[in-house]
Amino acid sequence: MISRLYRGFSTKKVAVVLSGCGVYDGSEITESVAVLANLSKNGAEYQCFAPDKPQFHIVNHLSGEEVQNQQRNVLQESARIARGNVLALSSLRPANFDALILPGGFGAAKNLSTFATQGANMTVDPDLTQAILGFFQLNKPMGFTCISPIICAKILGTKNKKPGIELTLGKRRKDETWPFSGSIEVADSFGNKLVDKDVDEIMVDSSALIVSTPAYMKSTAKPHEVYEGIGKLVKKVLDLTVKNADD
Amino acid sequence: MISRLYRGFSTKKVAVVLSGCGVYDGSEITESVAVLANLSKNGAEYQCFAPDKPQFHIVNHLSGEEVQNQQRNVLQESARIARGNVLALSSLRPANFDALILPGGFGAAKNLSTFATQGANMTVDPDLTQAILGFFQLNKPMGFTCISPIICAKILGTKNKKPGIELTLGKRRKDETWPFSGSIEVADSFGNKLVDKDVDEIMVDSSALIVSTPAYMKSTAKPHEVYEGIGKLVKKVLDLTVKNADD
Repeated sequence: MISRLYRGFSTKKVAVVLSGCGVYDGSEITESVAVLANLSKNGAEYQCFAPDKPQFHIVNHLSGEEVQNQQRNVLQESARIARGNVLALSSLRPANFDALILPGGFGAAKNLSTFATQGANMTVDPDLTQAILGFFQLNKPMGFTCISPIICAKILGTKNKKPGIELTLGKRRKDETWPFSGSIEVADSFGNKLVDKDVDEIMVDSSALIVSTPAYMKSTAKPHEVYEGIGKLVKKVLDLTVKNADD
Repeated sequence: MISRLYRGFSTKKVAVVLSGCGVYDGSEITESVAVLANLSKNGAEYQCFAPDKPQFHIVNHLSGEEVQNQQRNVLQESARIARGNVLALSSLRPANFDALILPGGFGAAKNLSTFATQGANMTVDPDLTQAILGFFQLNKPMGFTCISPIICAKILGTKNKKPGIELTLGKRRKDETWPFSGSIEVADSFGNKLVDKDVDEIMVDSSALIVSTPAYMKSTAKPHEVYEGIGKLVKKVLDLTVKNADD
């Protein structure tokens, strides 16, 4: 009981993995801020991490075109969101944290994995793979927003009991509102159960302790809708750490 | 009366001026997201603007050091925050908007003005000067966060009745919590009245229709405190547009 109270009221420490700075070649900025601000709002501490490697490429976010003959480093660009306080992903130790959260943005599909170019043949950054397996094996909750659940689907789809992990990547409609729903078929193919959710909803896999929310998978989402959907995800992830500690 | 109701319930359009992407050489990211998300939360439309010119310099946000032999464009980098939807500052017409908001970050002191290098001898980007004078002359409210009130202080300090504009740049304490309070003396010297406020407070000049909040002028501010302080600023700016329309 003392232990339970102590765990229940102690400050939660959450690792947040960034993938650059900007929706088209890095972490989606509104989603990342929503994760960090909702963590601090709920009294949790956080530490940002990012891979110390070159970005897959650089996108001019004004024109949408690729910038040639330049290189940016994922860790350095992620530091723009984290105001300098970000560590190399290789130093992330799941034992030192209560939970893990990945914001979305194309960086998750270009720098943290190869989903953007390889689809169902995607691979995941080895340090991130180790981190996700570590949190999973330690029975610690994880949260994934926007496209980043595809990484969870790839790593854990074959590690959990059938039907894999229950996740959302938005809605199964290939229209202008949900333009990236092809990712749902890929996540399905990894042996997971994909559930339709809107931007203001979260999908909770209470068994695997995985929470996901569509965020900007909905192209018409407004920034406060993304902020509030991720707010629900953050609260649920923190809530699952309490339940985990009480077990 | 019909006109009043119509104006009261019509969608407010707010211009937001960005200055890059990242606290040390551009717009502070959490502050910018807080402005946009709180605008959409309150049912307002927004359009982002930024100067189409090279950044003053590039800062490696991991090491804090200047990056040599590279150039970035303020408009292109601002597009990372705006998800591509940002226009050249030179195209901003105050007549087409109900209000103006400037987030902070060193970009306001390096790209929108020369305060970072010239202090009291600072100059302001000519397009931004025209925009601020335009909103002021049209009796439309403006909001400034973090260090950006220094720009308002410079442009309007001599344009308003004594004692100039009532603004906040945080607290008059040169310590680790308020490391930038030297800016208060400079804003004073432009003929304004600077008022101490904390991160969760706003300063309202009801006569000049200017709202300001310290945000990350407080170095220990947590992201949700910045988000909520700016939330108060956004609400007040929108409220002042109603009052303005009712006049």
